Amino acid sequence: MDFDEFREFGHASIEFIINYLSSIRERNVLPNAVPYAVVNQLPKEIPEQPEHWREVLKDLESIILPGLTHWQSPYFNAFYPSSSSAGSIIGELLIAGIGVLGFSWICSPACTELEVVVMDWLAKFLKLPEHFLHASEGPGGGVIQGSASEAVLVAVLAAREQAVVSYRESHPELSESEVRGRLVAYSSDQSNSCIEKAGVLAAMPIRLLPAGEDLVLRGETLKKAIEEDVASGRIPVICIATLGTTGTCAYDDIETLSTVCEEFKVWLHVDAAYAGGAFALEECSDLRKGLDRVDSLNFNLHKFMLVNFDCSAMWLRDANKVVDSFNVDRIYLKHKHEGQSQIPDFRHWQIPLGRRFRALKVWITFRTLGAEGLRNHVRKHIELAKQFEELVTKDSRFELVAPRALGLVCFRPKGDNEITAQLLHRLMERKKIYMVKAEHAGRQFLRFVVCGMDSKPSDIEFAWTEIESQLTALLTEQSLAARKTGNVADLTQHFKIHLNDHEKSQ
Amino acid sequence: MDFDEFREFGHASIEFIINYLSSIRERNVLPNAVPYAVVNQLPKEIPEQPEHWREVLKDLESIILPGLTHWQSPYFNAFYPSSSSAGSIIGELLIAGIGVLGFSWICSPACTELEVVVMDWLAKFLKLPEHFLHASEGPGGGVIQGSASEAVLVAVLAAREQAVVSYRESHPELSESEVRGRLVAYSSDQSNSCIEKAGVLAAMPIRLLPAGEDLVLRGETLKKAIEEDVASGRIPVICIATLGTTGTCAYDDIETLSTVCEEFKVWLHVDAAYAGGAFALEECSDLRKGLDRVDSLNFNLHKFMLVNFDCSAMWLRDANKVVDSFNVDRIYLKHKHEGQSQIPDFRHWQIPLGRRFRALKVWITFRTLGAEGLRNHVRKHIELAKQFEELVTKDSRFELVAPRALGLVCFRPKGDNEITAQLLHRLMERKKIYMVKAEHAGRQFLRFVVCGMDSKPSDIEFAWTEIESQLTALLTEQSLAARKTGNVADLTQHFKIHLNDHEKSQ
Repeated sequence: MDFDEFREFGHASIEFIINYLSSIRERNVLPNAVPYAVVNQLPKEIPEQPEHWREVLKDLESIILPGLTHWQSPYFNAFYPSSSSAGSIIGELLIAGIGVLGFSWICSPACTELEVVVMDWLAKFLKLPEHFLHASEGPGGGVIQGSASEAVLVAVLAAREQAVVSYRESHPELSESEVRGRLVAYSSDQSNSCIEKAGVLAAMPIRLLPAGEDLVLRGETLKKAIEEDVASGRIPVICIATLGTTGTCAYDDIETLSTVCEEFKVWLHVDAAYAGGAFALEECSDLRKGLDRVDSLNFNLHKFMLVNFDCSAMWLRDANKVVDSFNVDRIYLKHKHEGQSQIPDFRHWQIPLGRRFRALKVWITFRTLGAEGLRNHVRKHIELAKQFEELVTKDSRFELVAPRALGLVCFRPKGDNEITAQLLHRLMERKKIYMVKAEHAGRQFLRFVVCGMDSKPSDIEFAWTEIESQLTALLTEQSLAARKTGNVADLTQHFKIHLNDHEKSQ
Repeated sequence: MDFDEFREFGHASIEFIINYLSSIRERNVLPNAVPYAVVNQLPKEIPEQPEHWREVLKDLESIILPGLTHWQSPYFNAFYPSSSSAGSIIGELLIAGIGVLGFSWICSPACTELEVVVMDWLAKFLKLPEHFLHASEGPGGGVIQGSASEAVLVAVLAAREQAVVSYRESHPELSESEVRGRLVAYSSDQSNSCIEKAGVLAAMPIRLLPAGEDLVLRGETLKKAIEEDVASGRIPVICIATLGTTGTCAYDDIETLSTVCEEFKVWLHVDAAYAGGAFALEECSDLRKGLDRVDSLNFNLHKFMLVNFDCSAMWLRDANKVVDSFNVDRIYLKHKHEGQSQIPDFRHWQIPLGRRFRALKVWITFRTLGAEGLRNHVRKHIELAKQFEELVTKDSRFELVAPRALGLVCFRPKGDNEITAQLLHRLMERKKIYMVKAEHAGRQFLRFVVCGMDSKPSDIEFAWTEIESQLTALLTEQSLAARKTGNVADLTQHFKIHLNDHEKSQ
């Protein structure tokens, strides 16, 4: 493909994206898909001869788009946001166009240095402790990881290696494998699946401690667990706390956890993948309590900062603890500034060797939106969630399961789990909005999350109308079915409650 | 930013990339950089108000580009290629514009299904064994990982967990930590640093066995090591062989290694990050020998397939071995087709939870280049390396260190290591071409690798002229310096040899 064709293809693709994003509300957020529908529409081999890019864009429109779940739609209210922005999309284009890798400083100096800059920008923007800045005197700094999972795994593995070294120094009578066999880590039973997975990958059990009634993990629970483990000869390594759990956006109590971690010399990592964005807001300053006492922290920029996946910020209080654990080197990776300055070789801060120039999209996004734009985006999500929360509380057929937290509202139709499951099933079949359910203490509930790059109050109205009208339809249908068969006794208690509630709320 | 501005920014960025790539030969491949040069030119905080995208592109041109090493330049001859193409660059734009994640089938069906399609396309194109195809009956299939490091780590971790389970079944008298403490893995001393790192991360020692004189690891060496280990109570887990080592592109002997692995029930993984591209060529069919007997395999698409980083293909003979090891689930990740069909949920095939729609750029690249275009690209790199090899052999001051392999020529100025080091230092200071050195058996040498998306015979001429003229200049300078001080005795033997050789070759 020559540059003229590249230009045409590029411009057509920009138009393709504009068409897609500007009309995204016209599509069902969920596809009408059955497994292998897309596979079966495509040829079984690479075409022998090149095809024109117009053919590819045509198939993208007619075969691929209809099979996608539209993550950028405001009707995507599942998981947590994976938002994007014009600056970030163009950023990815430029990253690919420039095409450099940045595993060491020499292999593309500006790639490493721009990452140093934007990670310090972000740390200041989020009002993180000074020691997390590259510009600070100490060994702290930030790095872009591919995902929160990788950030957590890096913390877990580095903490593990540090623990092995230090425990063997104080207990030379134990072999390395004896030490490794006694290691143990901690998190809450509300933490993300990636934390349990990190334990599996690290071959170190992670005890998922019971969160309180309010779904918060506190120091006293951790202390009890550590004391039990120490008493039985185990070696506590790391606690992974969460600010903004996936289920309900609960905030673990970092202050009491850090007191315990300091007492037992346990690494404290904070997974703030979602809630981290709110650190930037004065009105959420409580969320930052205790962060000056943690060893490492991660935050996903696609969740609140409008930088598209993949881009997970991670800060380390002492990056040497990771570098010392991960550094394996070869002569072809050495360069003359290595070790002579404090400029990081980020390959030692992460799992893989290769790394993309992700700092570029962060830089472009931050500059084209400005700090004010970024804060406004977080505030907008909070406001829209408040709007949704009000709609829930005004309808007596529904109940909140946990207090609204940032852009997440956890709610359910009153009654038993079956109604929640049936309502969600109905919504999924209609494909107009996409939510997922969660469960706590035997109660299933729905998670409504404000997502998308440009959600509006009318989108919240749309979602709510869909949800409440489908509950009405569900209850009416089942009531009719029961009356028709004369089998009124089959109407379970929960349906009766619902119909009554609904009549009251009309 | 509204869509009109997005369009303008997008079009301007397409032009930016065209300007950059079409004039890339005019830039020094290495930047004139000292640590912190870029950091010091940039502000210390995110701007409070949004800036116009024109300002950002201006700074990209004037601050960032001069600090980059230009990986897409044909004068980049270091490491291995990280090539791109028009289709792949636009592919990244479309991936970001569409903005979906694909960790499970339901969360974006076409994202998973297109990956199934392109991985089967690629497996057929590379003539891999049938059992690696999703379309085959068995539990095999391919997945896109972020990097070769991650692919290797996935194999190492899955093999480790499989070994623990199966060994504990046959030796119930041992505790889990006793078993884990006895695990051991194998690779060659020529393998990539990511393999040693995988051992560190997996907390499992990887023995780097001595490759032969020809830098090839063979079954007999592995067998000896395994027998020693078994005799001393250790548990052999996995052997990571390489097709195309980083140093010299040596090919481990897969057939004899697989015989040993089968005998001792050891997982055999092949890291074909570079050489995998040549599987597609009939004239390189020898490289595929034994692949029908390996458990897993990885190949980097940015090395030969013109799909930009990140994109590492990995195939598994039995994907369940990974899924069973990595599967930790939560209710919010469950969906109705899970387990009901063979459609994969790729989150269980990899380290992180989140994943980008990388299959899209593969699909676009493959269709716009065609199978013929892809094969021609690999053949072109081989031809250009042959051209370089001839230039080396015609100049009697130089010697080949290993046979040319694919697009890599390993060579050195005759004499001791000091000349090689000084020549490379000189080339690095001039910044016209970029090579790195490697070392084997005490001998340092230079690696000339054909890279870039569009290298030509004239680029090879350019590089060679730079190299040989700098050797001439180096030798002349040192000879003059010695004569000037009258200190002819300081001329070491190697310089004399070189001057003589050069005179002969004129």
